[in-house]
Amino acid sequence: MAKELKNFTKRADNYSQWYNELVIKADLAEQSAVRGCMVIKPYGYAIWEKMQRQLDDMFKATGHQNAYFPLLIPKSFLSREAEHVEGFAKECAVVTHHRLMNDPNGNGVVVDPEAKLDEELIIRPTSETIIWNTYKNWIHSYRDLPILVNQWANVMRWEMRTRMFLRTAEFLWQEGHTAHATKEEAETEARKMLDVYAEFAEKYMAVPVIKGVKSENERFAGAIDTFTIEAMMQDGKALQSGTSHFLGQNFAKAFDVTFMNKENKPEYVWATSWGVSTRLMGALIMTHSDDNGLVLPPKLAPIQVVIVPIYKTDSDLQEISDKVKPIVEKLQSRGISVKYDDADNKRPGFKFADYEVKGVPIRLAIGKRDIEQGTVELMRRDTLEKEVLPLKGIEEHIVKELDDIQEALLKRALENRMKRTITVDTYEEFKEKIEDGVFIMAHWDGTPETEAKIKEETKATIRCIPFDGDTTPGVCMVTGRPSARRVLFARAY
Amino acid sequence: MAKELKNFTKRADNYSQWYNELVIKADLAEQSAVRGCMVIKPYGYAIWEKMQRQLDDMFKATGHQNAYFPLLIPKSFLSREAEHVEGFAKECAVVTHHRLMNDPNGNGVVVDPEAKLDEELIIRPTSETIIWNTYKNWIHSYRDLPILVNQWANVMRWEMRTRMFLRTAEFLWQEGHTAHATKEEAETEARKMLDVYAEFAEKYMAVPVIKGVKSENERFAGAIDTFTIEAMMQDGKALQSGTSHFLGQNFAKAFDVTFMNKENKPEYVWATSWGVSTRLMGALIMTHSDDNGLVLPPKLAPIQVVIVPIYKTDSDLQEISDKVKPIVEKLQSRGISVKYDDADNKRPGFKFADYEVKGVPIRLAIGKRDIEQGTVELMRRDTLEKEVLPLKGIEEHIVKELDDIQEALLKRALENRMKRTITVDTYEEFKEKIEDGVFIMAHWDGTPETEAKIKEETKATIRCIPFDGDTTPGVCMVTGRPSARRVLFARAY
Repeated sequence: MAKELKNFTKRADNYSQWYNELVIKADLAEQSAVRGCMVIKPYGYAIWEKMQRQLDDMFKATGHQNAYFPLLIPKSFLSREAEHVEGFAKECAVVTHHRLMNDPNGNGVVVDPEAKLDEELIIRPTSETIIWNTYKNWIHSYRDLPILVNQWANVMRWEMRTRMFLRTAEFLWQEGHTAHATKEEAETEARKMLDVYAEFAEKYMAVPVIKGVKSENERFAGAIDTFTIEAMMQDGKALQSGTSHFLGQNFAKAFDVTFMNKENKPEYVWATSWGVSTRLMGALIMTHSDDNGLVLPPKLAPIQVVIVPIYKTDSDLQEISDKVKPIVEKLQSRGISVKYDDADNKRPGFKFADYEVKGVPIRLAIGKRDIEQGTVELMRRDTLEKEVLPLKGIEEHIVKELDDIQEALLKRALENRMKRTITVDTYEEFKEKIEDGVFIMAHWDGTPETEAKIKEETKATIRCIPFDGDTTPGVCMVTGRPSARRVLFARAY
Repeated sequence: MAKELKNFTKRADNYSQWYNELVIKADLAEQSAVRGCMVIKPYGYAIWEKMQRQLDDMFKATGHQNAYFPLLIPKSFLSREAEHVEGFAKECAVVTHHRLMNDPNGNGVVVDPEAKLDEELIIRPTSETIIWNTYKNWIHSYRDLPILVNQWANVMRWEMRTRMFLRTAEFLWQEGHTAHATKEEAETEARKMLDVYAEFAEKYMAVPVIKGVKSENERFAGAIDTFTIEAMMQDGKALQSGTSHFLGQNFAKAFDVTFMNKENKPEYVWATSWGVSTRLMGALIMTHSDDNGLVLPPKLAPIQVVIVPIYKTDSDLQEISDKVKPIVEKLQSRGISVKYDDADNKRPGFKFADYEVKGVPIRLAIGKRDIEQGTVELMRRDTLEKEVLPLKGIEEHIVKELDDIQEALLKRALENRMKRTITVDTYEEFKEKIEDGVFIMAHWDGTPETEAKIKEETKATIRCIPFDGDTTPGVCMVTGRPSARRVLFARAY
């Protein structure tokens, strides 16, 4: 391992610190000069781009198109939907002026007091309001429906405590906003997009998720129902990884968006919205990585295979490079992204450590003796296991190995979650067990008050009422009142 | 033509109005509720996405990586580079507060006076300052160079007069920001990226451009040299379509970014920046479109081929659909985006007009008689010419036709520019001819004062000092002083 990793905090010692260091050491992101805003570095952004491309393909395959709406929202728009304003018109960036001028005292530039806006503008914390104000002009008849639009954008919420990727003032995300003629169609859409998120999380991120519906306390401000995918991190805490909202007619009513139905009668339009963000990067990191650094699922790794030559002389390097070249070409022709790192200003040991920290799924090391013997050393990042293999047919082996790693990561994450998911019947036991970092299935009386009390006393929240799982009625562990079914509790990021 | 197009303004009558109407009628964009900010509609955004994807591939092929930097810039950063502050710290969106609160008088929400920021934040008008402040931490040794980074982002400049795509308060763009160890390397990079832009404009947009360097008056605030590609619109006006700046060591000095060179001596880093924006959409529209609507080059058309069935009965439609299906599949397998529009709530005439306004390069119409005779009617959007062709082998024909259209559009645009480019020797003639909408090659004494006088009196500016073209010395048409060579004048968007 390279020197700088010696001081790497271990997960067991301080999981939170380990995460913060990993984000820096794997070159994913860093704090910027602007409070709570991060710089996403090229390596981190390359992973996000792979996520974007895959999600975008899945959105298009389900009939959605991209569009772009303004960054700024008139302040008054936020007040239109009664619950939405409570949720979003709080901590946000407010634009009040549109001009700077030279400081009369010669100290750089100052705000020009004459350039005050008539109405303040808010940097979008989410775009329901500006989009429904726009949809008003797009929708007249049932023939204009459905509208299936998505936007890739930056948004801003003035969070007090920030952590890179998990909670930042500015973050990148996609927000889908759809409009429908019927309640059923909108509900189906909201559920469909949750399925898309779950498929993406499991198939590409190798992150198993629990699908369910949020309780009233945790619902999106302005939604009738919020559906969620919840993932378990290695420390047993939950990370809400994507949400899809059935908005009913709330925004249509707030922005007066009606359509003429087939019977030529006006009706309010039904809505959904759904989003995932750069927060997914946090889920990816915290699900798979280890004390040596990042571990990436092959499907999202910017570099899937790295090949490091081990040589003493230039002619050794030449010989190795000649042997490696056709392997690189064959891997690339199979769509595998491969890097041959023959940089001569870094030692192999440094390179090994660097690609390990960066989570490259497969590393090949090849030296002069390997060439003579027709072999190559392969290391899997997930298990850190090394194996000496014949060079002949190595491409086939790599293709299979990448699939194996992808599966193994999902399996390991799933096993971790199963091991740490328990059923609890008394509040005493709940309070004790929640300290261990677990998902707890418990009975709850269905009231916001009881949920608030549990949160207050244990820092655990209802992550969701799972679509699957035990639906046997019982009694609330806190109040003893009837409970329709067990729900999922956990502490969360 | 469908009814709504009857009132479509003709280019000859009012080019500017024609443009504004076209943007709306082709469903590309619309004004939003926020002054000067547009909504990019799905069809417009689909064209922008095609541009983005192609440019992004070209950036990556030239060794660049994407990253993401904060939207907001501390006000003081703008003052660091003396010229930059003059150019960009003027009309911009200023964030002064970070919270809203319920109005004590019950009128929605108001700015919380207690949530005033210590230092105001500016929505980025361009990102040199925040990026060079970041690069300071990335660059220590020559080994850290070059840095070849690009960002896809939204930016904001509080323009007084806005026009969709051409000049909007918020716009989308990419901005490349590179750091180099030597002046030569940075200059080469700036020129290389200009070549990438020129290649993109000509090969994909079918927009011929003139490459050159800007005069002092037109240079980017903070640059040593600004390179530009200038395109001629159909009305003879110029549109600056992309710029690439050699920034020297200006930003390195402003943000104190040095590196240890190979001799272990500190040196300031050399920089470039380069960008193209949604303005390219304006260039695309104004170069090719006609009185019937948008004309798109096939390489950027979201739909390259549309197939419209002409039928009376359901069984006719079935027969046509059966015949069309394998054609669609064959075209798709060749990477051609094709839409079979069998919607039954619109008449063929309406569909024809709609796809015409939207600039779909090739339209096929197929009726029952065509099926019997084994024929199909093909219309080219650029020439509006119709041709009846054998159905057999139509895919081959379409592939060739798309290439033809792409070439024909570039050729037509180039011819228009040649026809409208003249050489002028006297200021009298200049003032007369500039009214016709032309590019004028004329002698100029090289001073900002003479350029300013010409702009003041004729509204024409020096678009660039072209890299190619006549370099014979002469005398300035205004002052009679010596001129090193002819430069390119035009009125511009």
